[in-house]
Amino acid sequence: MSSTPKHRRIAIGSDHAGFELKEWLKAKLIEAGYECQDFGTDSPQSCDYPDFSFAVAQAVVSGQCDTGILVCGTGIGTSIAANKVRGARCALCWNEYTARMARSHNDANILALGARVIGAELAWEIVKVWLETPFSGEERHCRRLQKISQMEGEGISPQEAKTTC
Amino acid sequence: MSSTPKHRRIAIGSDHAGFELKEWLKAKLIEAGYECQDFGTDSPQSCDYPDFSFAVAQAVVSGQCDTGILVCGTGIGTSIAANKVRGARCALCWNEYTARMARSHNDANILALGARVIGAELAWEIVKVWLETPFSGEERHCRRLQKISQMEGEGISPQEAKTTC
Amino acid sequence: MSSTPKHRRIAIGSDHAGFELKEWLKAKLIEAGYECQDFGTDSPQSCDYPDFSFAVAQAVVSGQCDTGILVCGTGIGTSIAANKVRGARCALCWNEYTARMARSHNDANILALGARVIGAELAWEIVKVWLETPFSGEERHCRRLQKISQMEGEGISPQEAKTTC
Amino acid sequence: MSSTPKHRRIAIGSDHAGFELKEWLKAKLIEAGYECQDFGTDSPQSCDYPDFSFAVAQAVVSGQCDTGILVCGTGIGTSIAANKVRGARCALCWNEYTARMARSHNDANILALGARVIGAELAWEIVKVWLETPFSGEERHCRRLQKISQMEGEGISPQEAKTTC
Repeated sequence: MSSTPKHRRIAIGSDHAGFELKEWLKAKLIEAGYECQDFGTDSPQSCDYPDFSFAVAQAVVSGQCDTGILVCGTGIGTSIAANKVRGARCALCWNEYTARMARSHNDANILALGARVIGAELAWEIVKVWLETPFSGEERHCRRLQKISQMEGEGISPQEAKTTC
Repeated sequence: MSSTPKHRRIAIGSDHAGFELKEWLKAKLIEAGYECQDFGTDSPQSCDYPDFSFAVAQAVVSGQCDTGILVCGTGIGTSIAANKVRGARCALCWNEYTARMARSHNDANILALGARVIGAELAWEIVKVWLETPFSGEERHCRRLQKISQMEGEGISPQEAKTTC
Repeated sequence: MSSTPKHRRIAIGSDHAGFELKEWLKAKLIEAGYECQDFGTDSPQSCDYPDFSFAVAQAVVSGQCDTGILVCGTGIGTSIAANKVRGARCALCWNEYTARMARSHNDANILALGARVIGAELAWEIVKVWLETPFSGEERHCRRLQKISQMEGEGISPQEAKTTC
Repeated sequence: MSSTPKHRRIAIGSDHAGFELKEWLKAKLIEAGYECQDFGTDSPQSCDYPDFSFAVAQAVVSGQCDTGILVCGTGIGTSIAANKVRGARCALCWNEYTARMARSHNDANILALGARVIGAELAWEIVKVWLETPFSGEERHCRRLQKISQMEGEGISPQEAKTTC
């Protein structure tokens, strides 16, 4: 890698199903020298994943943090919710390959993980790849990201977009 | 299952990386009696996943189709793009468990698959689970989905939301 | 399924890396009405997976138990070791599809799981599929199993076999 | 990595379900400068995985080849069969993490892959990790491998072993 990624301030969050893994990953990240801002939840008690997804996504798109990590049971709910935030590109990854592609091809800024589906050690390997892989910056990937941004900017559904254009 | 899911009209789409798997799944779906509306791409030539993600998502949220299937290399790009559409809940699944949870817990209406990561036969098993699993309708899941809808309705980033409220 | 599988007595074992998941699965199995014979290990202290792989494999091939479950970090070490036992067919599974195929096509009698790679809830889904799926008994699958048995019966490496035949 | 692994001569084989992926991987390996000995099958016509598993395992344990790659539908049948060969340590891998562990911890000499479960590009990433990862040589791992060898050397089931010892 030619450039060192600067993902030093990490926004982390989870629901109850992801609580234990979030705590475990947070400890590993701090031990590895990263700064973690924990947006909760702070217990294994039942709660709603969108609350934490939105908080982490906001911290990332606002520039308060450099990247985000979200954990729920499968990673699905939290990734759907996070992607509703303008500027958020949340990638659900389940192995190192998907993490590498999410960063290098999709310039994803939030990682979603499923605590009921993957083991903790694999999760940590995925996080390491995530933090160490820069966006490739290739033109075709930039063009695709711009198409996503454009859709977001319209703030409307594509159907409505068609009607108004 | 007490009620038969009514996912009969399927919107399907892919980029070039997912083209071959999309065609294979489409043939299986038609053979199994489903109606498929193919939103492209129609060749293995390089193209942009957001175009097909938006088209499939629009077909689903408008009610034109009952559910959607999107395929790209990892499923990541296409799921990020599809989730930008208001009302779309696109779930990236890589095994039967994630597909079952995505339907029963998240009431996801679009399935994303990664053609470079999973084999075709596993993809088909995932699709079958997807089409046969109804939403549980449990109150806690409904409440979480409403939180997502509320965020979408605001059409703004959570940061802006805070400022204006 | 026409016939109810009779996997009621389960031999279970793990090394230190699989200890926690083994204990969790054992509790779930007992709760579900299965009889579990635990061949250790009985703590998270470092130990050698072959010891437990051989013990579980022996319990299964001798008929003492109906099926076996082995857990180590990735499932790889324990599956290699168990398969060295004559009559053992140990399948490393990481989703429901592989578990179903392992039973229906390979008549596998021991399930290997990787505690560092898959989550506990997914592991339990895999175990349930394992215990509920019968061998198909199809001729082509029987013929392949007989080829494995024949190689085992020779008790020699194929190279030696060639020399002596 | 301090030492360059010397996996230059690769024994490769598959059944019909793995045929297409085997051919694809073989072309990639040759392009990358590896020497491939193909032990079949040579068409998508139905055949028996043990035949190819034994041939590849023999080529590896005899020293004719440096490492082996086996492909079947799930990787399960071919890994069970290959592990029946004395000296073979066949690891079924489904992501880069399992491949790295199989080499560094288990000194596995044959890689099994499931063509119906994983995509071709992921398979290639796994193969690359496999070929580039040396055995760690740590004492605890050596001790475990010796326990496997000892069991193989006895050429008998553990039950019989107990009776005769």
